Amino acid sequence: MNSTTLFGPDDAPVSTSVAKKKSQSKASKSAPKSEPASKARDISVAEFFEKNRHMLGFDSPTKAILMAVKEAVDNSLDACEEAAILPDIRVEISAVNDRHYLVCIEDNGPGIPDTQIGKIFGKLLYGSKFHKLSQSRGQQGIGISAAGMYGKLTTGKPVKVISKTRRGRPVETVLSIDSLRNKPEIHAQEEVVWEGRKHGTRVEIEMEAIYKKGTRSVDMYLKQTAIANPHLTLTYLDPGGQEVVYERNTQSKPPETVDIKPHPHGVELGRLITMLKETNARSISGFLQEEFCRVGPTLAKRIIAEAGHGLTPKSYPTRTAKEQASHLHRAIQATRISSPPSDCIAPIGEELLLKGLEKELAADFYVTATRPPAVYRGNPFQIEVGIAYGKPGGVGLEVTDSGRIQKKSKAERATEELVANADEPARILRFANRVPLLYQQAGCAITKSIIGTNWRSYGLSQPKGSVPVAPMAIMVHIASVWVPFTSESKEAIAAYDEIIAEVKRALQEAGRKLGIYIRKGKRLKREFDKREYIEKYIPHIGIALQEILDLDDPARDQTVEILEDVLHRSRKF
Amino acid sequence: MNSTTLFGPDDAPVSTSVAKKKSQSKASKSAPKSEPASKARDISVAEFFEKNRHMLGFDSPTKAILMAVKEAVDNSLDACEEAAILPDIRVEISAVNDRHYLVCIEDNGPGIPDTQIGKIFGKLLYGSKFHKLSQSRGQQGIGISAAGMYGKLTTGKPVKVISKTRRGRPVETVLSIDSLRNKPEIHAQEEVVWEGRKHGTRVEIEMEAIYKKGTRSVDMYLKQTAIANPHLTLTYLDPGGQEVVYERNTQSKPPETVDIKPHPHGVELGRLITMLKETNARSISGFLQEEFCRVGPTLAKRIIAEAGHGLTPKSYPTRTAKEQASHLHRAIQATRISSPPSDCIAPIGEELLLKGLEKELAADFYVTATRPPAVYRGNPFQIEVGIAYGKPGGVGLEVTDSGRIQKKSKAERATEELVANADEPARILRFANRVPLLYQQAGCAITKSIIGTNWRSYGLSQPKGSVPVAPMAIMVHIASVWVPFTSESKEAIAAYDEIIAEVKRALQEAGRKLGIYIRKGKRLKREFDKREYIEKYIPHIGIALQEILDLDDPARDQTVEILEDVLHRSRKF
Repeated sequence: MNSTTLFGPDDAPVSTSVAKKKSQSKASKSAPKSEPASKARDISVAEFFEKNRHMLGFDSPTKAILMAVKEAVDNSLDACEEAAILPDIRVEISAVNDRHYLVCIEDNGPGIPDTQIGKIFGKLLYGSKFHKLSQSRGQQGIGISAAGMYGKLTTGKPVKVISKTRRGRPVETVLSIDSLRNKPEIHAQEEVVWEGRKHGTRVEIEMEAIYKKGTRSVDMYLKQTAIANPHLTLTYLDPGGQEVVYERNTQSKPPETVDIKPHPHGVELGRLITMLKETNARSISGFLQEEFCRVGPTLAKRIIAEAGHGLTPKSYPTRTAKEQASHLHRAIQATRISSPPSDCIAPIGEELLLKGLEKELAADFYVTATRPPAVYRGNPFQIEVGIAYGKPGGVGLEVTDSGRIQKKSKAERATEELVANADEPARILRFANRVPLLYQQAGCAITKSIIGTNWRSYGLSQPKGSVPVAPMAIMVHIASVWVPFTSESKEAIAAYDEIIAEVKRALQEAGRKLGIYIRKGKRLKREFDKREYIEKYIPHIGIALQEILDLDDPARDQTVEILEDVLHRSRKF
Repeated sequence: MNSTTLFGPDDAPVSTSVAKKKSQSKASKSAPKSEPASKARDISVAEFFEKNRHMLGFDSPTKAILMAVKEAVDNSLDACEEAAILPDIRVEISAVNDRHYLVCIEDNGPGIPDTQIGKIFGKLLYGSKFHKLSQSRGQQGIGISAAGMYGKLTTGKPVKVISKTRRGRPVETVLSIDSLRNKPEIHAQEEVVWEGRKHGTRVEIEMEAIYKKGTRSVDMYLKQTAIANPHLTLTYLDPGGQEVVYERNTQSKPPETVDIKPHPHGVELGRLITMLKETNARSISGFLQEEFCRVGPTLAKRIIAEAGHGLTPKSYPTRTAKEQASHLHRAIQATRISSPPSDCIAPIGEELLLKGLEKELAADFYVTATRPPAVYRGNPFQIEVGIAYGKPGGVGLEVTDSGRIQKKSKAERATEELVANADEPARILRFANRVPLLYQQAGCAITKSIIGTNWRSYGLSQPKGSVPVAPMAIMVHIASVWVPFTSESKEAIAAYDEIIAEVKRALQEAGRKLGIYIRKGKRLKREFDKREYIEKYIPHIGIALQEILDLDDPARDQTVEILEDVLHRSRKF
């Protein structure tokens, strides 16, 4: 492949060999070499995503900078969580020139051994989170390497990583991805002096980008990350030199979660056959108990009896015939098995969620709801919802340094004010495993659930097939051991029926409480209107009484005062 | 990796080594082995897509069957086109049991050498179309292997392929994909007797599926495929045993297209650096001329002079410094270079498009428009549009075998009638390189362009932000050397500005002609109404004249006849 480039002429000699198990062919020698199919060859996964980088979210310079920050911060948070460290993350973005920005993300995580740095930052589809079922932000092993690939593609510059493990010394690695081979290329790796952090990782990527504020900006992503991660202290230095610090709300780390084994009901026949072939278990009974959750000896026995067709608890897994596997699969589906354990997922929790919303969203009323864990395709998940309602006055204005009051720009307001105006559709804040999702709102199961909920019954207006129109922000969080994203860029959640149903139930719970508040507010408003109406006439009554009873002015004023007092005491507030 | 499964415990021993170029590290030995990152490992691309199969379009049993047919038919058409064969394709779907279907696609293509069959049908990211810029249906090297993977996952059954090349003998291969390793597993390969085809390929996949008629069905896909490929004869045997034949409209094959080299303006800095490193050219001047289209000796000289910084036409490409490459990149962008050649793309053509529309869409009026080729990100593309307007009466009814007239079901009508009803949004038929796109309509650049066009000025009603409401079907075809799909499932086109602008221009061209027809129709309608109105009163005038002039009945009737004749001759139609 040395002589060919991605877009180059495709006449490289072919050197492929099929792994034949039992080839009985005699025709292979007579196959003419000039057949079109013989030009076929391997496509490196990095080449594939370089050419299709819009699938990873790197399709515009505005979005690219957000994607890079997101991938790095997600990794930092995951690393801290796994090592039981309270995360302290610093994000810096600075302009190199008018088209290029330098993006730096630094954490106090456990650090990365230098032998691993190349693959983690310079190889797509490499990681520790794909092969297990656990609640983590990353799951694909693509993100941060894709960010580095985009940086190299647009600026030609490599990625710089400094990392220090607890027992190691700080090592700086300069690397880039060789996309024709999907392999890291290490340009330099050496010990350096790194002040400040006892352990942690710093990654620097230069890239072509456009930096903007607004609803889908880095600023917004970081603000929402702070809401969903109340145990995080986050410092952000923006290209203008402004520093924002989000201090942690709590000293307690999220509850530890455990990895789980797949639930029997979520495993398809083809996967079951592969598992039977690859298992270390020496009996079907052992196989069922070891490879799945929620299966004990009794249940295993029952499943095997149900399967029949010569299967006994002692049958050897790797010798199971395809036909038997099919019966085993049917037996599993027909057997009642309890839901997967829920200690594999950790929601944010109502208390911290409320704290986070109150801190970052200015509103009159807050409500949250948390559903019990549920299951889709064998994967446990849990839904949390938070609503912030009502907009305190005076927003949209700020006092400048020179003392003048001025209106904030639309983008600034969008970033700072997460609650919609009264005549706008409610703002939606979507989170998956504590990561804010900013793009592809329309294609997301969360949005579909919000649209599918009847908000009119809670006293809100809702155009047909739309999000409710109200001064409101709706936050929805899905925590799961495997979040089903619709694309590699992880921007929207696939519309599984079970997920939509759970989100709706959570919204209804929160909605009912909101409805009570809104109706109370409407009653108050009516009372207030009546009182104001009566108050308007009291002075006129005073004047009339003055004329009828021939009062002097002080007596008239006193009468008015008494009347007002009576009114206030007689009304219910 | 032997002992671990996709969902299994992740404690396999790590055996990774980073390709260090200049490692000066001493810290590597002190790195503790228990660091979280050390659990990381490679993810096979097949495992990745098996777990994320919704990204490939295999997320529901209804959609899976369509995807499988689509991928196989696309491959067949591409193979025939490359080998200059008039395609004759047969699709058969039959029910195996209530959940499983057998999908068979057979073509008269050039056949596939048996050594290639394994990789083509049993390995993701393998193919002949990714590494070149040419107009083909496939481009990713994923599709057909993914269909086989889904079949295996849901039924445990392998894929069966029979293929015969012109000079070879028919060979049957039974294979499946080993998704943990992304490698084909050949279960059997042997010579067989295959009647009927002199050369060609037949693929059989059994899969879990739900078979439905309707707007996003196999039936619809095949019908639209016939419209966009007038040189194709297509036979379809559905699970109910009904056979439909789409005969070809033309004996002439689509014009041959050539592969092109990338256009200099579409190449990013990082890619330029890689190309400089990987080229065989021995001078920068030669490099520019050999690796790109539209660069001759004079232009190469001008670009190199503009770049400066020590670069001369004779500089050795692989010794170009990164800094120089950056200046070369800037010089390329600053130089006027003519658009890429357009013989790399072949639109359907107005005549054949019109024929296809008239044959498959029952309507009163047809119009087409073809734009000249344009360029996005260095890739040539061309837009064609066809509109079918007006619905002839009597649709929605059919005569049964027993002679009764009955209403067709909604799904049947949706499949058979591609023109919308008068009170419905216009039907949109989207095509990319002659392949119908049936899913993700809302997220597609074509739909965005239709919504962004002002249809009111052509006499149609159009709700704000919506598709026009009219008895109409709008067909849009994009032909390109690289279609930018939004996901691996190739269902929607990314919204590049250049593409949206071109689609709109084509729609406007067709729209203007439609507007003339509609206005003429409206005038006709007014005339017709007036005539009908007068005709209504002529018999009364006859009676009145009879009374006044004392006519007998025959004289009265004759008078009425003469009056009607005068009316018809006096009006303009």
